[in-house]
Amino acid sequence: MTETTVAKQAGAPPAVSPDAILQLGFGFWGSKVLLSAVELGVFTALAGTSADLETLRSRLGLHPARHETSWTPWSPSACWSARTAATPTPLPPRRSSTGSSRATSAAFWRWPNARLFRFWADLTEGLRTGVPQNETKTGGSFFTELYTDPARLREFARAMTALSMGSILAIGERFPWSGYRTFADIGCAEGGLPMHLARRHTHLTGVGLDLPVLAPIFQEHVAAAGLSDRLRFLAGDFLVDELPDADVLVFGHVLHDWGLDTKRLLIDKAYRVLPQDGAIICYDAVIDDDRRQNAFGLLMSLNMLIELPDGFDYTGGECQQWLQTAGFRRTYVEHLAGPESMVVGIK
Amino acid sequence: MTETTVAKQAGAPPAVSPDAILQLGFGFWGSKVLLSAVELGVFTALAGTSADLETLRSRLGLHPARHETSWTPWSPSACWSARTAATPTPLPPRRSSTGSSRATSAAFWRWPNARLFRFWADLTEGLRTGVPQNETKTGGSFFTELYTDPARLREFARAMTALSMGSILAIGERFPWSGYRTFADIGCAEGGLPMHLARRHTHLTGVGLDLPVLAPIFQEHVAAAGLSDRLRFLAGDFLVDELPDADVLVFGHVLHDWGLDTKRLLIDKAYRVLPQDGAIICYDAVIDDDRRQNAFGLLMSLNMLIELPDGFDYTGGECQQWLQTAGFRRTYVEHLAGPESMVVGIK
Repeated sequence: MTETTVAKQAGAPPAVSPDAILQLGFGFWGSKVLLSAVELGVFTALAGTSADLETLRSRLGLHPARHETSWTPWSPSACWSARTAATPTPLPPRRSSTGSSRATSAAFWRWPNARLFRFWADLTEGLRTGVPQNETKTGGSFFTELYTDPARLREFARAMTALSMGSILAIGERFPWSGYRTFADIGCAEGGLPMHLARRHTHLTGVGLDLPVLAPIFQEHVAAAGLSDRLRFLAGDFLVDELPDADVLVFGHVLHDWGLDTKRLLIDKAYRVLPQDGAIICYDAVIDDDRRQNAFGLLMSLNMLIELPDGFDYTGGECQQWLQTAGFRRTYVEHLAGPESMVVGIK
Repeated sequence: MTETTVAKQAGAPPAVSPDAILQLGFGFWGSKVLLSAVELGVFTALAGTSADLETLRSRLGLHPARHETSWTPWSPSACWSARTAATPTPLPPRRSSTGSSRATSAAFWRWPNARLFRFWADLTEGLRTGVPQNETKTGGSFFTELYTDPARLREFARAMTALSMGSILAIGERFPWSGYRTFADIGCAEGGLPMHLARRHTHLTGVGLDLPVLAPIFQEHVAAAGLSDRLRFLAGDFLVDELPDADVLVFGHVLHDWGLDTKRLLIDKAYRVLPQDGAIICYDAVIDDDRRQNAFGLLMSLNMLIELPDGFDYTGGECQQWLQTAGFRRTYVEHLAGPESMVVGIK
């Protein structure tokens, strides 16, 4: 009799997946969408009408400032799939000890628990005003406070790496790295992606670009991994500074933070600096073109409404169009892990 | 080809169950339990320990005032089942028009949306202090305000009937009403249970007891249903006044509002007034004796922590013990609908 059989006979709970934990922990997003939708009268407005999105938006008193993607979670199908369909990016097994893994997890959940849950209570106000519903309403700034507390910043950067790790691992496998020699990770934080790519593809050298405050964290991790000869940190502001020269530029969880103009600005900057046949990789919880399946992406877009003045998540089709307009000759979308995909453009 | 087949071929979404809507709308309960559990270090404390509940409670800095049931959602199995296992009582099909049904639904969701979501953000504080986390923290009172607004009270009472209707219908079928002639519904609100029982069992006459403010709503509904000859309203406070004479006394969503002493007081009062062979029916989201399956009941108990100074939800075994201590000669638990069961005692 195998161990599995014994466990089942003893009434052990089914195997635990980190997907399920993430789905439970962020369950308040889909829940609040339903509650705010009822409050705003969305379902009543949808019943027996063939009005288009703009007509509905106006009738419901929703603010017009945000990109249309912000509003699409109101579709009944998205409300449904919010409960069941999309699962967030799985947390990968970590090489570190169990204690470290627990610390990562606790740091990660501090962000939705101490901040987002309370802010999402004002989702309806956010939809009506188009104004972020976080600390900025009372003059605070999450990142300003975070950047003045090195221990907390370190913890937060690690948690963000954990959240991205499913996509990082998939990018290491699914992008044709053998055809490239250099890359830069734009908004690299502690350097989870550069370190994985350098380990997985030993011919690569890379740059991590982020604000100067991240430098010691990145450099310490890279040194500890023995990768300082192939990875270096570049302090900068990707909105202001030129992007580094590299065969491949990666924007992970970056584009969705910004409005359409800044998204296009970043893509244009990437195009300018890339060599012929160079590639851009944009990865986020990319929404399906019909905006019906990837409920987590739709909900993440509402989280951008809560957190940022202009941010929104986008469909694969939209991002491909931006890349094509910038000049990329070939574009495609490829699924990574959980609700995340990458949009790739070849110059 | 049947209509169903056509609908499926046309790519129609699967049939919509109200269970799923309720599970989504209250999804923030289970979500916040996970977030607060991580914040409090529950999973770290549970790892590699065989400490009992009281030791864990003390180690985690949780307030001891509440009944132990309040804390049991912290068990990992309950956190898991919070996501998947328990589904709230289904909303029944209503006889009224679609418009009325929509109004009911909107009124129902106003309660979790405008109040509970925000209050649950303070779950951790509630667990640490044992103090309710609703309007009372700032001197307000939900019911005081509700009782001064007749239109909103009417709307709220209707929404509460809708939430109870699954159990009301089941009580009409599963309790042996043919052996009894009279009943009283203690805390009857607009009278959903009395009206259903009077329609379903034409030999019954009944009393609805509630605060005087509910009188016009109850009486109007009963008159409209042509049941005024068999149902009457009794204005009173069940904590203070004697309970009415009846063969069967029903406490629906009443016992869980109160601490152990008041629960026992109400049960004792019922025993005193019931005739030999009379019955008490207590229905709530009764928790399974192992406190592992009915996650909605466990979460509802935490909602009592948020809302009330002493309330807690209880297991079938606990309630049977209280009934037996009061003198009831036979007791049993029977499932009703969704997460709800009735605990019955025969004098």
